[in-house]
Parts: sequence; C-alpha cells; structure tokens
Amino acid sequence: MTDVRQAVKAALKAQTVETPSWAYGDSGTRFKVFAQPGVPRTPREKLDDAAKVQEFTGVAPTVALHIPWDRVEDYAALAAYARERGLRLGTVNSNTFQDDDYRLGSVCHPDAKVRRKAVDHLLACVDVMDATGSRDLKLWFADGTNYPGQDDVRARQDRLADALREVYDRLGGAQRMLLEYKFFEPAFYATDVPDWGTAYAHCLKLGPRARVVVDTGHHAPGTNIEFIVATLLREGRLGGFDFNSRFYADDDLMAGAADPFQLFRIMYEVVRGGGLEPAAGVAFMLDQCHNVEAKIPAVIRSVMNVQEATAKALLVDRGALAAAQRDGDVLGANAVLMDAYATDVRPLLAEVREECGLDPDPLAAYARSGWARRIVEERVGGTPAGWGA
Amino acid sequence: MTDVRQAVKAALKAQTVETPSWAYGDSGTRFKVFAQPGVPRTPREKLDDAAKVQEFTGVAPTVALHIPWDRVEDYAALAAYARERGLRLGTVNSNTFQDDDYRLGSVCHPDAKVRRKAVDHLLACVDVMDATGSRDLKLWFADGTNYPGQDDVRARQDRLADALREVYDRLGGAQRMLLEYKFFEPAFYATDVPDWGTAYAHCLKLGPRARVVVDTGHHAPGTNIEFIVATLLREGRLGGFDFNSRFYADDDLMAGAADPFQLFRIMYEVVRGGGLEPAAGVAFMLDQCHNVEAKIPAVIRSVMNVQEATAKALLVDRGALAAAQRDGDVLGANAVLMDAYATDVRPLLAEVREECGLDPDPLAAYARSGWARRIVEERVGGTPAGWGA
Amino acid sequence: MTDVRQAVKAALKAQTVETPSWAYGDSGTRFKVFAQPGVPRTPREKLDDAAKVQEFTGVAPTVALHIPWDRVEDYAALAAYARERGLRLGTVNSNTFQDDDYRLGSVCHPDAKVRRKAVDHLLACVDVMDATGSRDLKLWFADGTNYPGQDDVRARQDRLADALREVYDRLGGAQRMLLEYKFFEPAFYATDVPDWGTAYAHCLKLGPRARVVVDTGHHAPGTNIEFIVATLLREGRLGGFDFNSRFYADDDLMAGAADPFQLFRIMYEVVRGGGLEPAAGVAFMLDQCHNVEAKIPAVIRSVMNVQEATAKALLVDRGALAAAQRDGDVLGANAVLMDAYATDVRPLLAEVREECGLDPDPLAAYARSGWARRIVEERVGGTPAGWGA
Amino acid sequence: MTDVRQAVKAALKAQTVETPSWAYGDSGTRFKVFAQPGVPRTPREKLDDAAKVQEFTGVAPTVALHIPWDRVEDYAALAAYARERGLRLGTVNSNTFQDDDYRLGSVCHPDAKVRRKAVDHLLACVDVMDATGSRDLKLWFADGTNYPGQDDVRARQDRLADALREVYDRLGGAQRMLLEYKFFEPAFYATDVPDWGTAYAHCLKLGPRARVVVDTGHHAPGTNIEFIVATLLREGRLGGFDFNSRFYADDDLMAGAADPFQLFRIMYEVVRGGGLEPAAGVAFMLDQCHNVEAKIPAVIRSVMNVQEATAKALLVDRGALAAAQRDGDVLGANAVLMDAYATDVRPLLAEVREECGLDPDPLAAYARSGWARRIVEERVGGTPAGWGA
Repeated sequence: MTDVRQAVKAALKAQTVETPSWAYGDSGTRFKVFAQPGVPRTPREKLDDAAKVQEFTGVAPTVALHIPWDRVEDYAALAAYARERGLRLGTVNSNTFQDDDYRLGSVCHPDAKVRRKAVDHLLACVDVMDATGSRDLKLWFADGTNYPGQDDVRARQDRLADALREVYDRLGGAQRMLLEYKFFEPAFYATDVPDWGTAYAHCLKLGPRARVVVDTGHHAPGTNIEFIVATLLREGRLGGFDFNSRFYADDDLMAGAADPFQLFRIMYEVVRGGGLEPAAGVAFMLDQCHNVEAKIPAVIRSVMNVQEATAKALLVDRGALAAAQRDGDVLGANAVLMDAYATDVRPLLAEVREECGLDPDPLAAYARSGWARRIVEERVGGTPAGWGA
Repeated sequence: MTDVRQAVKAALKAQTVETPSWAYGDSGTRFKVFAQPGVPRTPREKLDDAAKVQEFTGVAPTVALHIPWDRVEDYAALAAYARERGLRLGTVNSNTFQDDDYRLGSVCHPDAKVRRKAVDHLLACVDVMDATGSRDLKLWFADGTNYPGQDDVRARQDRLADALREVYDRLGGAQRMLLEYKFFEPAFYATDVPDWGTAYAHCLKLGPRARVVVDTGHHAPGTNIEFIVATLLREGRLGGFDFNSRFYADDDLMAGAADPFQLFRIMYEVVRGGGLEPAAGVAFMLDQCHNVEAKIPAVIRSVMNVQEATAKALLVDRGALAAAQRDGDVLGANAVLMDAYATDVRPLLAEVREECGLDPDPLAAYARSGWARRIVEERVGGTPAGWGA
Repeated sequence: MTDVRQAVKAALKAQTVETPSWAYGDSGTRFKVFAQPGVPRTPREKLDDAAKVQEFTGVAPTVALHIPWDRVEDYAALAAYARERGLRLGTVNSNTFQDDDYRLGSVCHPDAKVRRKAVDHLLACVDVMDATGSRDLKLWFADGTNYPGQDDVRARQDRLADALREVYDRLGGAQRMLLEYKFFEPAFYATDVPDWGTAYAHCLKLGPRARVVVDTGHHAPGTNIEFIVATLLREGRLGGFDFNSRFYADDDLMAGAADPFQLFRIMYEVVRGGGLEPAAGVAFMLDQCHNVEAKIPAVIRSVMNVQEATAKALLVDRGALAAAQRDGDVLGANAVLMDAYATDVRPLLAEVREECGLDPDPLAAYARSGWARRIVEERVGGTPAGWGA
Repeated sequence: MTDVRQAVKAALKAQTVETPSWAYGDSGTRFKVFAQPGVPRTPREKLDDAAKVQEFTGVAPTVALHIPWDRVEDYAALAAYARERGLRLGTVNSNTFQDDDYRLGSVCHPDAKVRRKAVDHLLACVDVMDATGSRDLKLWFADGTNYPGQDDVRARQDRLADALREVYDRLGGAQRMLLEYKFFEPAFYATDVPDWGTAYAHCLKLGPRARVVVDTGHHAPGTNIEFIVATLLREGRLGGFDFNSRFYADDDLMAGAADPFQLFRIMYEVVRGGGLEPAAGVAFMLDQCHNVEAKIPAVIRSVMNVQEATAKALLVDRGALAAAQRDGDVLGANAVLMDAYATDVRPLLAEVREECGLDPDPLAAYARSGWARRIVEERVGGTPAGWGA
C-alpha cells in the first residue's frame, strides 16, 4: 500500500502540464469578448502570469506559443526571459486562419498563392522552433467549407498532404509535427481534418515524427475519447493532448469542469498505455478560453483538475482490475475503476505539493500572493492580449 | 389541378420573408470576421441592400432592426427612408449581450443594477417600436452560465420572469413579445431559455401577446423541429421563425442549405396548421451569417429556398395524405409527402415571379443589376457594419 | 459542522429509491437478450429479489409494477406478499406497445378502436392501483411515427389529449398521473411525447395531479437535465425520476455509471428546489436494463450511486455558494460545488447504514448472503421473466 | 446535353444495389417485433421476394446472406435456386452476437475459447462464400463493453487484430473482407470498431483486400459521412455501403427517407471519386429494418431512392462546379450542386426503366402484381423469418 502510494506520488511529481500563452489573454465568443482588467499586453507579460501558475503548482514549467499572437523580434531573448522565471518555451502553434486571404482556407485553399503563403507561415514557425528550442509544431487548420459544393473535398486532401509533406521535411531531427483534428468550427459543412482517422492517415504517410493531437473538445457528441487515446497509444501515434472541457461543442471550458469522470477515464487509458512515461512522448497541454472567469486561477484550477484525474487513474488497482476483467465480472471490474474514481485525492496531492516545497493549496496561495491585484494596478494602458494580437 | 396550382401560386404571392439588417453586414466566428468589400456602413445602406432583395424577390418587404447595431437618431426618418425604397421596418431585436456589464448575464444577472440596465434597454426597444410602427419585439437572451454552480439556475428564472413581466406590460395594444430559445452558445453550461418548453412556460404566464420564436439553428442535435412547430401552432403560441440552417450547432448558414428536406417538413406543418394565414400571426424571418459568401445574393438565395420549401409544402396532396394516414398505409402516406418534395418547383416559382412582374431568376437579375460592383466602388471608407456596431 | 453532518445523515436515512420489477428479469437489445441463470419467473420471485435489495440497502422499500409483465390474478395478495417481505407495491407502469395492434401507436393511433383498447388498458391500470394502493400511474407511450407523413403529427396530439383526459378523470383522489417523455425509440421520426415541454403542456391542461417524469436517458445529446429538473420543481410539476444512465441514447445503464457528475448536479437541483421533502411529492425510481451484468447487485449498486450523489448534493455549502454567486465569483462558486463533489462520501454512507442496523457495504453483504447462488439452484425450469411476460 | 443525358442513363443502367435477405423478414426494436403477414419463412422464400424487387427495379440482382439466419444444408443448391429467379447470392454476413456465449463479446472476448468459437464461425462463413461464389465477407462486430473498466479496451484491439488476421489469411484470391464500424449499440460504453479510423487502421495492416464498409446509420450525430466516403475512396479502401437512413441513431429506416440531401451528397462523392466504376470495387448494399411498413415495397422504394440520389449526382455539371470552385465562388459552386439536387429525376428514371423493358413505376407494378396478396395467402404456418432465425 505504502509502496503504491509512493509510486503514485512519484508519478505525480514527474507529470507536467503545458499552459498556453493565449489562456492568459482575453477571449470570448463570436458574440462578445468581455475584457478583464490586468490581462497581459505582451508575450513577456503572459510569461509572467504563466510563471505564477508554475510557482504555485510546480507542474507547469513550459508555455506554448502561438504565432503570430506571440510574435517577437528575438525569440532567443524571449526564451531567456522565460528561463529567468523558471519556465521554458514549449510547443509552437501556427495560425493560418486570421488573415483575410484565408477566407476559403489556408493549406487547402483552391488558390496556390494562398497555399504558398500558408505553408510559408508554417515553415516560419519551424524557424521559431529552432530559435526557442521547441520540440513540437502543433498544427490546427481551420480549413473547411460551409456549403456543399463550395470546394472539392478530395482535392483539398491532396493539397493538405502536399503542405504537410513540405513542412514535415523541413523539421529538424528531434522536432515533431503534431496534427490536430476538429469536428467542426469555424467550418460548418466539411472540415478538412475532422477526426482522428484523417489525422492518423496523414501522419502515417508523413513519417514517425508526425503524430496526432487529441483536443478533448473536438469530437462529435458522445464520442468515446478514451478509446481514441488507447488506440493512438497502441499505434504509437499519440502526440499529445489539448485539454479543455465541453458540454456542447468546442466550449473550451476548464479541463475537468464538464465531465471529470471522462477526464479520469482518459487519464486511465494514458496510464494503462504507458503514456505517462517520458519515452512515450505524449505532450500534456491545456487549450482553453476563460471567457467569464479570472484567467490565472482558472489555469491553476485546470492544472489541478488534470492532476486529480491522473492521481485517480494511478490509484486504479490494476491487478484487481485485470482479474475481474479476465473473469468476465462486469460489476467487479467496473467497481475497481469506480473505487479509484470515488477516492478523494486532494489530500494526496496536498502531500505531493508539500513534499515539493509548495503550498498544499495552490489557489489559496495564489490568492494570497497579491498578484491578481498587482496586475490590475500595473497593467494600465496598452492593448490587452487576445486572439487578435 | 389548375385550381390547386392557382391556389398554390396565390399563397406564394402572399408569403413574405423578413430579412435582418445584420445579414448585410460583416459577420464571422470567434476565430475571424472576414471583411467583405462593399458592406454597408450605416442602417440606411443596409436598407439599400435590403431593397435590392425586395426588388428581385418581391417577397421581402420588411427589414428587422437590431438595437443598438441599427441605432439612429430619428427612427421615423429611418422608416420613411425605408418606405421610399419600398420597404417597411419590421421586428425590433434587442441586444443585452455586448456590454461588459453583461459578462454574467443581463436580465438574469445576479446584480439588480445590471438587470435594471438590461430591462431599460428592452423598454427602450419598445420605444423604438412605437417610432417605427413595428409589431414585434424579439427577445433573445445570451444569459446563462458556463460552469456548474456559477449561479443559481432557479433564481435566474425568477429574475427572467420579473423582467419579461415588466416589458410585456409596457407593450402597446397591437405589439407582441416574441421570446426566442437557444440550446447553447454563448453560455456553455446552462442557458436560461434553452428550449421551447421554457419559452412557452414564460409566455403562458405573460399573456396572449407573448409568443415563442423558433430559430431553426437553436436545437439539440436530432431535435424534430417540425414537431415543435406543429405543437406551438396547436397551442396558438407560434410567434415566428428565425430561419437559417446548420449541420452542427448554430451555424447560421443560409436557410435550406443544410437540410432542405427539414425546411420542407417545417413548412408543411406550417401549412397544415394554418400558419400561412395572416390571422395566425406567424412572422417568417431570416437570421443568418454570411461569413464566407457574398451577402446580398446569399439573402436572395435564402428567401428563394424558403419559397421553394413553401411551394412544395403547398403541393402536398392533403386529401390523399389524409386517406393514406387513415388507412395506416405507412409507405403510401410517406409517398404522398415525398412526391411533393421531389417536385421541381423552380418553374412554378418562375411563373409566380413573372406574374408579379419580376424576373423569373432573381439571382441572375441581381447579378446583371451591377449593384454588387457599385457598392464596392462607392462604399469606400467608414466602418463596415457588423455585429459590433 | 457536526450539525450539518447530522442533517445530511437524517436526509439520507429518509430518502427512498423505488426499484422496478423488470430490472430483475432478463433484458437486452434488439440484437439479443442474453439469458442469465437464476432470473425470477414470476412477480413474486421478482419481489423476493427486490426484498434482498431492500434488506441490504434499507432505502428501497417499494417496487414498481409493469402491467402486463406483472399481471396476477389477485393484486391484493401480491401486495400482501410484498408486505411480508418488508416491501410495498409502488408505481404502476402501463404498457401500450407490445400488442400487434399497436404497430402504428396506441392512444395516438389513427384507428379509434385501437385507441379505445389502449385507453381501456390504462383504465385497467388504475384498477390495479386501487387494488395495490399505489399512488402513481406512470405513462410512457411508445407512440410516434417512423416516416415523415406517416401520420398527422397534430391530430395525434389531439388524440393523446383525449386519452389522457379520460384516464386522469378516472383517478382517485390521492392518485396521480406521471407522464414520461422520450426523445426517440422505438419511434424514429416523430415521438408523440418527445420532450418535457410537451409533457408539461398536457399536464397543465389535465390538472394538478398530472406531473412530468424525468427519465435521465430520454433526452437529446447534450441536454442539461438538471435545468429541466429545476424548472419543473419551480413549476410544481416534477412528478419523479426514472434513473438510469447513458453514454449515447436510452442505454439504460446503471444510474450514476456513465456520468456521476451529472447525477450529482441533478440531485443538487432536487435538494435546492426542496425536492427531497415529502411534501414535494417527487418519486425517485430506477428504470434500467442489466443486459450483461448480474441484476440484483446492479440494482444495489445503482441505489448506492443515487445515495452517493444525494449525499454530495446535501454536502454543498449552500451559504458559501450563495455568497459566491451573489459576488459574481465564477470560480469560487464553481469551487464550492466541486468541493462537495470531490468528497468521498462512502464513509459517511457506511455510517448511515450502520446507524440503521445495516451492513456498511451492501454489495459485500449481498455477496456473502448466498442469495445469488441459491436462486440459480432453485429457479430451474419455467420461463424467465423479461419484457415479454 | 443529349450526350450527358445518355451517359447518365448508361450509368444508371449499370448501377446495382444488393438487397439483404433479412429485410424481407420480421424485425423490430427491443420493445417489440410486430409480425407482418406473408413474411418469408425460409431463405428460399426470401429469395422469392428479392426476385420481385429485381423483377420490378432491374437493378437488384444480388442478395446478401446472413449466417446463420440463412443457414441451409446446400448452399450450391440455394445459389442455383437464386439463379433460376434471376438472382445471384452476394455478400456473406457473419453473426457473432446472438449466442449466449457472446454476452461479453466474440472475437474480442476475454476468454480465448469464446474467441475461438467466433473465429471458427467466421471461417465457416468463408466456406459458405466458397460454395456460393460470393466475393465479399462482411464483418460487423457487436463487440464492446457497457461499463468503464468492464474490459481492457486495448487488449480487445489486440484480440480483434488476431482474429481478423486469421480470417483474412483464409480468404481465397478474389475474396475480400469488408469491415464495418458502428458508433454504438448494442455496446453502450465502448464499441471495439466504433469509427472508420479504427476499421481503416486494421484494414491497412491486413492487406489490400481488406476494406471499410460505410453503414450510413453508424455515425455520431452530425458526422459528415460524404467526407468519410471521399477519404476512403482516395485511400482505395472503400469496400462498400450499407445504406439505410436515420434521424437519431441506427434507426435503419429506408435509405433516402430521413435525409435525401445527404444521400445525394454521398453519391456525389462516389461519382466524383470514381466509385461507380466497376474497377473501384464498391459494393452498394441496403441494410434496413422495415418495422412498421410493408417490406417488399419498402425495399423497392429504397432502391429507387438510391437511384434517384445517383441520378442527381450524375447530373451535377462538374465542369461548371470545378470552375466555380477554382474561382472561390461559394454561392456559384453551391448553386451548381443544388441545381442537380433540385432536379426532378423521376422522369429520367422512368425512361431508363422503359428502355430496359421495365414498368416506369416499380411500386405501382409491384402493387398490381398481386404478389403481396399471394404471399399472405400462401405463407401460412411455419415460423416467419426474423433476426432470430
């Protein structure tokens, strides 16, 4: 028992969750972006906020960049700035959806000139990776069509394949391409990478360093996400997660907020498939929008939710589970899983934090730190960071 | 046969579809609003565009306003401007979702001051109706919560009821309140008016001039919308439609573009329930976003799609249908409906248009008119209209 | 704190969950009913099994009947049999979907003779209630159509209203009608009572003893069920629950198995709306199918899952929640709710059980009882009970 | 124009749709199988009915078998019987879901003995193919789990892969394996082949004669099926279709009944991807349940619906479409597609039939044939065919 507990705690101490720079800025829906006071105005200020998340959770040492939202003159300097705050720059996210040229798509656009522009942007993102030392290029394409007939669904796949090939070939030896799929939005008829199957098929052709990213909000209603996770791990093609949660569509709520049991089941398949091992190369990232809630504590809460789901997954008595499964004991096997889920792991995580020299309650510690008040006071003037900049 | 055809044509000539002022302006998703050249910059320019839709379709004589997007100093003057172009101002749509005060709701907000501000806006919309002579106040509330526990679901209903009561009591004798429901977005956990049942329950308590609006994009996946239409007509509570179409969520595509068979089934229940009769008081409106396509022809196309669905619904051989239904002849009854749906009604509608002195092909006529080129040339400078203004 | 704990325990001791007689018999999908050994062959044997659930949980003192599956000559004798085993007969469920006459519907059928037969069955169910002393008649209609045009959607509502009226008027003074809605299945185009709004509208017209039943598996994907619960409680029209759980459609899995967080949210709205009070008249029932798992322990587990969700709901610090909601503290309010949910309430429930003279672990106690082995040995020959008999 | 019309007619004359033997027998939901008079009692009587469909449509020359529902002593004799009626035996469908041993799965079952039994059945199906001369073995597995933890999701994939490998290796040179996926039902938590990606990944490993089958009712809500069709054609892995239609889940309604526009879009992608060419090897099959409607005319109607969708797809002006797509003319491109869809192709298909010596109206001709009355009179006694036998 104690040994199990020690192993669980060791695994929890080793786990890291990357936070996205854009979660610290303003976001919203097509109806309204509600401005919040104290929001960062620059990539450096985003890193300042991310450093607070790391300070109080201890498991969020890297920050994902989004280009051009985090465009700077000198990425090496930005990386140094991060290092000074105990952070590293992480995954580089491309953006081929916010230029008027991309109205009908980017790498899948019918016009070769637009495709060229999009691919050039992706190649430039690899340049950024070279400068920041990032391992992963994460590609999400808003490409698709709104109306049947608008464009040729199949030709768009050909164009997509060509673009991915060119970018993949540009990657350095340790760099990887993470291809994200999404059920719909902003395309409302056909999305060019709508499901894991499409992303997987492209990755297979590209080579071993192309992998699929699972954004937990990017599926059709009712989709069994943990099945996809188990399958991609079995295939050696799970690149990582964009964690968030949803009740309806790509709601981008805090991870674990809408269906904590689902997050636990996902993390169980990760654990079962060896996905927590560094060798598995699975990147655990958040990708969320804090439209109505305070941003930094929302990120902290999300990181903690991932930790709690992981802790419960690690607590599953896998020997007992395997025995019940082998015996065809449906209720017994389910009970083993549910016992772990029903466990209140907050005391265990408090212990883990204290053993790491952290406050056992990251949210309370953040609240006491005064940072929330300070950024409201100090970040006056300028343009709050958001999806547009 | 000829008599039926004459009756169908008469009904088609009598049908009108209200177009929304905002469909002529820019729109988009949370990811990007793609600017289009030639977009109107003022309410008057929107009316200029709407006048073109009316000129070529002949069945779109009214234009819905959205306050504050269409705020002007002098609404009577705007109404006169419309009249000069063969238009009337139609339904007034309120907006209680684009002020920073509304981050946590408007009429359902926990803070009484915010609720007061929201109700005052609604009352001001009735003032606008008085000035424009509009019959209907259409209320859509973005109110809701993103996280379980965020607010008290039931208390919000009490606040909603209070607000609706105050506004309903302010209505003039012929004025009506149309209450719209929506499954989700922008609220991602609980929406305060999420379904027709909630809207209906509130309308029942308010009085006979409170009615439910069916936006065809505001339902859970798989919802049988024509059932709701039939039920609301049976209850005498169908206020009208916001037509648009969707493959996924509230996609706001052109009416009839995603599931033309569904639009036909809806129009069949309208016809069957007497909803085309003026006495039924059903308002037929569009509410769409033309994010990637040209806006004026998209509106024309949508109006035509509604006409085609209506024509097919009118062509259903109701005697044969009733006989087959009475006999329990499943395939026979379905076949009667499908025969009408399979009919190509474009020639019939071309005839209707010619008999009304219109070009039989509205889109071609619009294309020839040169208006598209002219607005691009003339509407230079200024701020294109959109959801923000 | 201690006082709160005492109050929670008192509420848990007062709570009861009705189990359905049919959960003890065989069930399956359209593909296959997998027979299980030891399944009861008669209503009395079903009561024997239900008595075991009551023996080990202490909160399942009533059993719902389904007519004709539980048809007996002498219902008073059946009631006496139940009483001898510490049980009472509960809700009477009608069945108007398993006669060849009902191919095209029952109370909504186009043929008046079929409707008469269906209504007569419902009236006969009230006779059963008179004999058993049951309070509630639960009506679920499989009525609907598979194809557009198959029947007149609106005329079917008229027929439904007539049937409900006749049955409602037959009810004795303390008897109630609980009207259940269902999104789809077995009707695949239009279901005649597809949503809570339709059930509510009919109940309003019938009178105060007509109420809506919420089956947790009968909604469109993504529907916020707790909103419906809160709304019906606010309207005084929540008759009760058919608990079960689902990942996809009406899967009829064990309550709490698919989305325990949802069950907690539902129970929170029940608590918040006073629905646990006897005066509220909310019936808590299971309605499930144990297709692949052992039936009696599955029922025990489900009852326990309802108890755990209720315990967590009762533990919500409502004062702190109200304060955070009033302050617009999104994260704080959500955290109050989540704190209760994260609590491991199994020790508390073990205490409750021990204070009631029960084994703290009902499943282990049942397993030790030898009942499972005994029924396999003794129930040899005869026809296992199922949906057909 | 005439040339186009001739080409379209030629393509329509060449198209065939396989009908399933089980569509002629009784079927239903878990709630009830409504018996219909005149239903066949033997595989030969099913062929008699299928021969009527072929007689009146001329495009349904093959019949799919389901083993064991169509088990006979002498398959060569059955094939001869078919030939005498102008039919051929087509795809062989396996059944590993109706034996009590399969309660927890078949080829994915945790017990090797059950897996052996299931694989032996599949191998026996290949023996049947050898006897009937069938090209395709269609595999649909009901395998899955109802509860999280019930079995190991990943181990089940390993078992599945082993089973498929053994069966694939047994196939003769021209024989193919068609692997079907399904979103859910009868498994309600995790289905072992839930989506096209999973089926595709297995087929890739097996070899070139393993292909994916698209059942149009087997997807999550909102899934863009034509995208999957286009993708599988692009990959050379589209084995065929199981056509049917649905409003909700796997409703198994008549093809084209629920969303005729979707069927058209699917057939357009088939045409565009060369899938109508014999070399493409795409099998067009029906897989439906006629629960409430007459079975033979329902099959005829479904075949006609597939023909109408195909005719419209063939009528798309692909040159104009390509030009509009190339120009980024969203509305123009959509209009080209919609013009074909709006066309009433019934006259064209009537011509095609007359040129083939058929009655232009298959349903009327069938009604006049007296077959419906005759089978009711003659098929007295015996056990009506259904899913159970």
